[in-house]
Amino acid sequence: MNFQKVLIAGKWRESQNPVDHFNAVDPAKKQKLPEIYPVSGTNEVVEAIEAGKKAAVELRNIPRENFALFLESFADRIDANADELVVIANLETALPKEPRLRNGELPRTTDQLRKAAKAARELNWCHATIDSPINIRSKMGPLDGPVAVFGPNNFPFAFNSIAGGDFAAAVAAGNPVIAKANTGHPGTTLVFARLAFDAVVETGLPPATVQMLYRTPPELGLQLVSHPDIGASAFTGSKTAGLKLKAAADKAGKPIYLEMSSVNPVFILPRAVEERFDEIATELFGSCALGAGQFCTNPGLMILQKSDLTEQFIRTLAEIFDNNRPGVLLSPQGPDGIGAAVEILKSAGAEVIAGGNTVEDEGYRFANTLLRVDGKTFISNPLALQTEAFGTASLIVVADDFRQMKEVASVMEGNLTGCIYSHTQGKDDTDYTILEPELRPKVGRLLNDKVPTGVAVVSSMNHGGPYPATGHPGFTAVGLPASMLRFAALYCYDNVRPNRLPIELQDKNPTGSMWRLIDGEWTQRDV
Amino acid sequence: MNFQKVLIAGKWRESQNPVDHFNAVDPAKKQKLPEIYPVSGTNEVVEAIEAGKKAAVELRNIPRENFALFLESFADRIDANADELVVIANLETALPKEPRLRNGELPRTTDQLRKAAKAARELNWCHATIDSPINIRSKMGPLDGPVAVFGPNNFPFAFNSIAGGDFAAAVAAGNPVIAKANTGHPGTTLVFARLAFDAVVETGLPPATVQMLYRTPPELGLQLVSHPDIGASAFTGSKTAGLKLKAAADKAGKPIYLEMSSVNPVFILPRAVEERFDEIATELFGSCALGAGQFCTNPGLMILQKSDLTEQFIRTLAEIFDNNRPGVLLSPQGPDGIGAAVEILKSAGAEVIAGGNTVEDEGYRFANTLLRVDGKTFISNPLALQTEAFGTASLIVVADDFRQMKEVASVMEGNLTGCIYSHTQGKDDTDYTILEPELRPKVGRLLNDKVPTGVAVVSSMNHGGPYPATGHPGFTAVGLPASMLRFAALYCYDNVRPNRLPIELQDKNPTGSMWRLIDGEWTQRDV
Repeated sequence: MNFQKVLIAGKWRESQNPVDHFNAVDPAKKQKLPEIYPVSGTNEVVEAIEAGKKAAVELRNIPRENFALFLESFADRIDANADELVVIANLETALPKEPRLRNGELPRTTDQLRKAAKAARELNWCHATIDSPINIRSKMGPLDGPVAVFGPNNFPFAFNSIAGGDFAAAVAAGNPVIAKANTGHPGTTLVFARLAFDAVVETGLPPATVQMLYRTPPELGLQLVSHPDIGASAFTGSKTAGLKLKAAADKAGKPIYLEMSSVNPVFILPRAVEERFDEIATELFGSCALGAGQFCTNPGLMILQKSDLTEQFIRTLAEIFDNNRPGVLLSPQGPDGIGAAVEILKSAGAEVIAGGNTVEDEGYRFANTLLRVDGKTFISNPLALQTEAFGTASLIVVADDFRQMKEVASVMEGNLTGCIYSHTQGKDDTDYTILEPELRPKVGRLLNDKVPTGVAVVSSMNHGGPYPATGHPGFTAVGLPASMLRFAALYCYDNVRPNRLPIELQDKNPTGSMWRLIDGEWTQRDV
Repeated sequence: MNFQKVLIAGKWRESQNPVDHFNAVDPAKKQKLPEIYPVSGTNEVVEAIEAGKKAAVELRNIPRENFALFLESFADRIDANADELVVIANLETALPKEPRLRNGELPRTTDQLRKAAKAARELNWCHATIDSPINIRSKMGPLDGPVAVFGPNNFPFAFNSIAGGDFAAAVAAGNPVIAKANTGHPGTTLVFARLAFDAVVETGLPPATVQMLYRTPPELGLQLVSHPDIGASAFTGSKTAGLKLKAAADKAGKPIYLEMSSVNPVFILPRAVEERFDEIATELFGSCALGAGQFCTNPGLMILQKSDLTEQFIRTLAEIFDNNRPGVLLSPQGPDGIGAAVEILKSAGAEVIAGGNTVEDEGYRFANTLLRVDGKTFISNPLALQTEAFGTASLIVVADDFRQMKEVASVMEGNLTGCIYSHTQGKDDTDYTILEPELRPKVGRLLNDKVPTGVAVVSSMNHGGPYPATGHPGFTAVGLPASMLRFAALYCYDNVRPNRLPIELQDKNPTGSMWRLIDGEWTQRDV
């Protein structure tokens, strides 16, 4: 068989002793795609780690400007090859070519790479801190080994293991990356790897700055994240897989950043329903159905208070769910995954009020699904009732009253986001004031009157949240420069001679405009 | 029996159903002290966690100014009660009253509390980030539960679980603390808890903002750090205990910050020995013997290159070690601990050239101990030869040449500090340039021509380092405001209405001088 090549230690080559192979699937046609991809074995993974470690050492002596040039060159190449990327990503994921892939995700991806370039060039990200009277200086810097990135299936571009946010942040912070393609879109990842490697060669970074393999047996993933020569890992995907990787990395003392499941509760206060009934229903369905519901920030849980109007709202929403054709799911496993989650929700006491079944249609589809449960039942079994169904499937919790609504918030697990809809003229404000402190510490991003899908790439973004949404509540996967801090260590220089300091910590401001904390003050001046 | 009281849920009270009891020991006289302390059981620990969780919720509505006032009031009370603290700490630890306790550690402790107050008041620590066109705003904020602090035995004041750096950072970030006293100095911790609680009452914080118990069975420590209502934990102490706590906390998805063992390598380049033979020998011994060698940053490993002068240097150092009376160790377990470590080093091929034995003398003492090993042996068995001996016991590695010295650096584990001594006029500079990149990523703080003991409380300090010196290379335990980031989560506000924003993120700069990152620029202006 003729396998697609892997990118290891600066070479495009046949996989050495692959342990298995696989094909990608066109989910719209339910057909295997012709290309065959190798499953890498131990030697290949270890070789990648060793090459990555060498690259990490070499990268320490390379000016940040080269990292910026690399990221920009890569972004330009992505733009120039947009057609090819859109075609293959659409084939592998069934995500619409337009607007989603070409006009949404692709520009978002290149924008993110360019913002990472800007962050690498501006140097502000490293929090250079100088206490001049005592001559102690510190800054964040790259890790002592490559960063392993495991990308998810739902964003073939923006969260791709070799083009997405984790990749951009890890490289901008000065680290090489070992990308493990998502097995749902290996062909897309291959194109990115080709473009990234061409940019590496053009900008003179060490060849093993970017490496890519398609798949490993699960136990090799555990070896990868816990290897002594790995700097850190980033994983976006299921809780089951994420927690296994976390356990392995934790045991080895290796940082790992996970973005796992999240049901993204939306609390809708009564006066908001009164005021903006149709608007909210439409907005919610739009958010639930975006990307066939396969978004990390998909609103999987909506909390309302019992009333006639609420019943009417639920009926309206159920009708919208029923009357819209469900989107094509990313993979053959999609419908079964949603079905299994719906069964768990039902066993825990939820009732299906729309959909609930696999749809026999072109492509893998699951009916737009809405479930409901009362507040008391939710509170008595909160873990099962926070099971994520990765698709357009949401659970409505009908609380008896505000007090119970607040209690629902208090039993929530950690989530990426939480929304509160309230009356625009303040009629719900007393309740908001009581609800907010319950919800706030449980979510990374709190929204008002706005659906959680759509994660802006801005410095203030937090695409993170308390466990089990992620592994640590202090870090974000989106938003530069903060996302770079995941792939960095704090390095202090005590009495180190001036000519031996990294440029970020020398007396002279290296860019003339870099922000540094000098003697307690953020400043752009020289020491 | 009459047990000393614990401080739980805002009450000084008898321990409920203690599972055991213990006395502190005067290590200078090898005598039990009269006071009896309870070992708390499950119910008491759970009660503390529940009270701490409630306090965490209440603290969210309390202005930062009150936290600052509390920390300052506590510092003032410590100053006013310095005599009592010095007497009892000296009794429990045998650390000299003067200068160590009264003139060194006590002012350091109050300075740290006052710096934490300043950081809480200035608000800069929270990295307020605002993107005004899109109205997304974020900042770091307190965790969703109390912080458990496990203090070490070697700094009864500055790292005390209820007065030290972790306590100050956790409270300044807005969290309640559950302090687990170090069992070496329960009486000192009791005095601190009394002063802290008086300050809590005075400044109107929730009573359970500070809680204190003396000891728990080990399995209860694991429950404490992994309890669903705990925000995070901080531990300073042995690697054995630290790794057990880490495993429990990791499994529960709870952040834990550990400061564990570190041998703090000191590389001495040949021309530095030629140039400053006596100065370096004296300085090194001073650092090795400080606090009877029981410092986290104690230089436990020195690396030199083979030469006649090196032999002479080693003989001189061995003489100094032999000719100085060893200090009194902190606990009855001290001599055995050092002895066991020395045995491991010997089994791995090291040779004792000074000391090596317990000293029968007033107080618990172990002879000042120096061992040596050749570079080849070190490189062949680096883990065993990096065993920390917690006392004045250091291993000298004699490398054949510079190449081997560099290889020694390359096999080092993560450490808090690493020093390089080199010729002041640059004669070692070529070697420095090659050695530094090997050593740099393995240590939190890199020093030039300076011993690692003495950890300045300044913003640029890093008292942290790669695993296994700590559990995460991105955080520091000393240095405000950075140390506060350990006890914080990132909270983002997306489209949240202006009157609902925390003051740090409102348009108006809350202090008039707080530094915020607004639209990409660090500024003190309003939005």
